[in-house]
Amino acid sequence: MNHGTHGTPLAPARSGVPEHGRVPKYYLVKAQVEELLDALGPGGRLPTEAALAERYGVARATLRQALRDLLLEGRLRRQGRGTVVAGAKIEQPLSLASYTEGVTRQGLRPGRTLIALDRQSAEPALAERLAVAPGEMLWHLERVLRADEERVGLESTYLPVARVPDLDREFDPAGSLYAHLHARGLRLAGAEERIETVLATPREALLIGTPPALPMLLLHRRSRDDAGRPLELVRTLYRGDRFSFTLDLAAPTTV
Amino acid sequence: MNHGTHGTPLAPARSGVPEHGRVPKYYLVKAQVEELLDALGPGGRLPTEAALAERYGVARATLRQALRDLLLEGRLRRQGRGTVVAGAKIEQPLSLASYTEGVTRQGLRPGRTLIALDRQSAEPALAERLAVAPGEMLWHLERVLRADEERVGLESTYLPVARVPDLDREFDPAGSLYAHLHARGLRLAGAEERIETVLATPREALLIGTPPALPMLLLHRRSRDDAGRPLELVRTLYRGDRFSFTLDLAAPTTV
Repeated sequence: MNHGTHGTPLAPARSGVPEHGRVPKYYLVKAQVEELLDALGPGGRLPTEAALAERYGVARATLRQALRDLLLEGRLRRQGRGTVVAGAKIEQPLSLASYTEGVTRQGLRPGRTLIALDRQSAEPALAERLAVAPGEMLWHLERVLRADEERVGLESTYLPVARVPDLDREFDPAGSLYAHLHARGLRLAGAEERIETVLATPREALLIGTPPALPMLLLHRRSRDDAGRPLELVRTLYRGDRFSFTLDLAAPTTV
Repeated sequence: MNHGTHGTPLAPARSGVPEHGRVPKYYLVKAQVEELLDALGPGGRLPTEAALAERYGVARATLRQALRDLLLEGRLRRQGRGTVVAGAKIEQPLSLASYTEGVTRQGLRPGRTLIALDRQSAEPALAERLAVAPGEMLWHLERVLRADEERVGLESTYLPVARVPDLDREFDPAGSLYAHLHARGLRLAGAEERIETVLATPREALLIGTPPALPMLLLHRRSRDDAGRPLELVRTLYRGDRFSFTLDLAAPTTV
């Protein structure tokens, strides 16, 4: 389902040519560089900024603005001291499946790095969302998500300590939390999710290793168990240049 | 489902304070301005840049960078010659329901402005996605989406002319395409969707009236009829500062 990006059929709707108004110079260069990227193909190494600026007859600053856009959009990736053409974005299915399964389905090796696992007493708003008493102890689990060693996201989870008292002792933070919960008889029966785009904060950019201005996909999830009780609150930040979400909608709710 | 944004419970995970590394000055100011925004509340008018720069003791350029971030994130909105605190993002349910229903559910008045409705012969890639013969005629419908007169998105739809030959004569482009299709016995039975974040092109920024660097939510949809036949390809761009997507996941595919 790749229409609408990178010179594919719906691209005209994203072409930079306005019916009225002028096109910024950097954008014209960007369009030329995109043709070059299509020709080079994923993994292809980009010529130096100096060479490109000369090829397209623009100032270095103008060229840099074009390359910056292409980096933010995930068309380009830094590799060592050079820049290469990026591959397609990772398609993460919107389902109750874990990150592990989503990434594995893409033929990538998922990984997680623990940033923090600590106990906190629930603030009123958080307690209300988790349907626990204010002040009840919660686990806060924060992990960097990796795909083939590349840092691609940051996940922050809150769940009542009472549900999984042994989390700090028996859970492998590099593994799947859902597998751990499942093994303890805690079944996810559903979740409400909200998706938005946000800019990475300096802290997030630092942890994920992205430029602070990089647009991210932010997914909020509240999971419930088979009794309909809230089980966890999750906030997952995915690199906007590396991820897309997919879902299949069946039987219309309304038409 | 508003945890994780704007000083709500999960906010600490987005606080700008890194465990290591330094916090850019503009970000510290941004955090201070955010407190002010919470105090002012939605619709509250922001003091002038000069006044804010003086209040926080920073250069105008530093303050502007903070305000720019807050604008891109949808915390602030331009209103006339001033700037006001923005309300919550519009929550658009990920369902087969039309834009009209999604926005109406938010208590907003939906609207659409026609940009283009024309016939095109299907390029091979487009034909394949729609399961029609290359060269078969397609409608291309492009409309700006509005909510209470504000331009909030841009929708581009491709569908075979053979399915709705009268579209240019009998369809009101300000109305719901799905209602039109439904009235002609074309029922949406499902759709595959892909969501990503992209930067608005100059043309899109011009049509929607946003800064070109504004992160957008891009939704690709391929709808199918009750016979499982592809019915339309849609590419909808939503203002990232005004929209979030919501969905409810039931019965785990896997856990």
